Amino acid sequence: MKIYRVTPDTRIKLKHASPEDTHLCDDKDAGKKEIEKLLERMDALQDKLYAAKSRALLVVLQGMDTSGKDGTIRHVMRGVNPQSCQVFSFKVPTPEEQAHDFLWRVHPKTPPKGFMGIFNRSHYEDVLVTRVHKMISDKEAKRRFKEINHFEKLLCDNGTVILKLFLHISKDEQRVRLEDRIKTPEKRWKLSTADMQERQNWKAYERAYEEALSATSTDAAPWYIIPANHKWYRNWVVAHLVVSALEKMNLKTPKPDPHIDFKNLKVK
Amino acid sequence: MKIYRVTPDTRIKLKHASPEDTHLCDDKDAGKKEIEKLLERMDALQDKLYAAKSRALLVVLQGMDTSGKDGTIRHVMRGVNPQSCQVFSFKVPTPEEQAHDFLWRVHPKTPPKGFMGIFNRSHYEDVLVTRVHKMISDKEAKRRFKEINHFEKLLCDNGTVILKLFLHISKDEQRVRLEDRIKTPEKRWKLSTADMQERQNWKAYERAYEEALSATSTDAAPWYIIPANHKWYRNWVVAHLVVSALEKMNLKTPKPDPHIDFKNLKVK
Repeated sequence: MKIYRVTPDTRIKLKHASPEDTHLCDDKDAGKKEIEKLLERMDALQDKLYAAKSRALLVVLQGMDTSGKDGTIRHVMRGVNPQSCQVFSFKVPTPEEQAHDFLWRVHPKTPPKGFMGIFNRSHYEDVLVTRVHKMISDKEAKRRFKEINHFEKLLCDNGTVILKLFLHISKDEQRVRLEDRIKTPEKRWKLSTADMQERQNWKAYERAYEEALSATSTDAAPWYIIPANHKWYRNWVVAHLVVSALEKMNLKTPKPDPHIDFKNLKVK
Repeated sequence: MKIYRVTPDTRIKLKHASPEDTHLCDDKDAGKKEIEKLLERMDALQDKLYAAKSRALLVVLQGMDTSGKDGTIRHVMRGVNPQSCQVFSFKVPTPEEQAHDFLWRVHPKTPPKGFMGIFNRSHYEDVLVTRVHKMISDKEAKRRFKEINHFEKLLCDNGTVILKLFLHISKDEQRVRLEDRIKTPEKRWKLSTADMQERQNWKAYERAYEEALSATSTDAAPWYIIPANHKWYRNWVVAHLVVSALEKMNLKTPKPDPHIDFKNLKVK
């Protein structure tokens, strides 16, 4: 999956990454079967994560409207135990949140040791939507990139592994998905005029993403650009990344209480 | 499942409810297959719950040590979308929590509209463990029962359906499960001397549960005594109760934005 990783200190261009790509697994049926196996593995690893309480995993999901953030959570995280998995969706900040620095509302939602945390949108909105709508200056954006890097380093130093996933779809694919919402009566409630307007800012969002991904892909918390035009392939790549992040933690079953003499213990 | 419901304003005795019972489904294999179907149904209903954002479901899990609270969450809730499911485990209160009334730490964890919330232990610990260890008087306990009923009524009035599940195992079954933890090296870390000591208070816990369940099973928030010696049957009953609670909400797909002219809308 390394080919999807944004190398730290490089300047990326989204047009060089194909949202159509499926080259690591060309057979859709085989891919779907593999996902099932990966989810079983994920369940077992998450169990160890929870028992060990030594590490945490934070998955940050970003992407344009309709890029599949909800779908990724629904299909890749459905196998996990909800007891040790927390999902947070960040919406437009409340007045109280806006009265603080932009990381204030995010910090309390980071996963504790033993947990998997998923951010459906995140602190990255504060260097994306705010830039497209010129709510912050370029100088302010650059300061925030540094603040994000310092914040994520703090989390990593405390044992959290951070996976940042940009779900990359093409503008054409977004049209198809929006048209599907318009045509299908049961999906119409998902459509807002705001979504339609934001599509007009596609180029500006691309530029904002390119800058943010380039500035904040670090060794501690790298970004991955996930080809997301094909939903099954998107799920396949994400499942691989999550499983591999958990595998690398090398989690151990906790040691038993040393004060208990297990050999001679009787239950009365 | 009505036979497992504690009728409001009655005084129950746990010895009249068999933890061994499986009479509603005598075939284990058929029961397990049915659970798979119920989980699929639960997933679809939870999707509607999340979309509609009109109601919430709160599942309260209580039971003696090893009664299977974690296992129920793992096996019955594994099919749900973690994005709209929150699980909270209540441990020994912190000094800050203890400086407030006993519902102070619980209220912020109740599920918002659109969500399923699961309490792994709950505010009921404050009328159980506290009574067994004589940290509160009988008078205080009775006052708390009333406060709990008022609190849960408030949640119900706001659209939350509350399912309170007492996972009922026998003292013999607990011995088997504790012995299994002692014998199996990978499970030993789960055993604490406190668990072994609490087993000595079995009778006192039974009495405390009988009083609490009798005093707080209301029409708004009834208790169910779930036979839990057989794990598959426990899961089967809980899955039925959760699905049926969601079915009864009669959830509707939200209406589309009336300001959008879907017939003539073009995606540019």
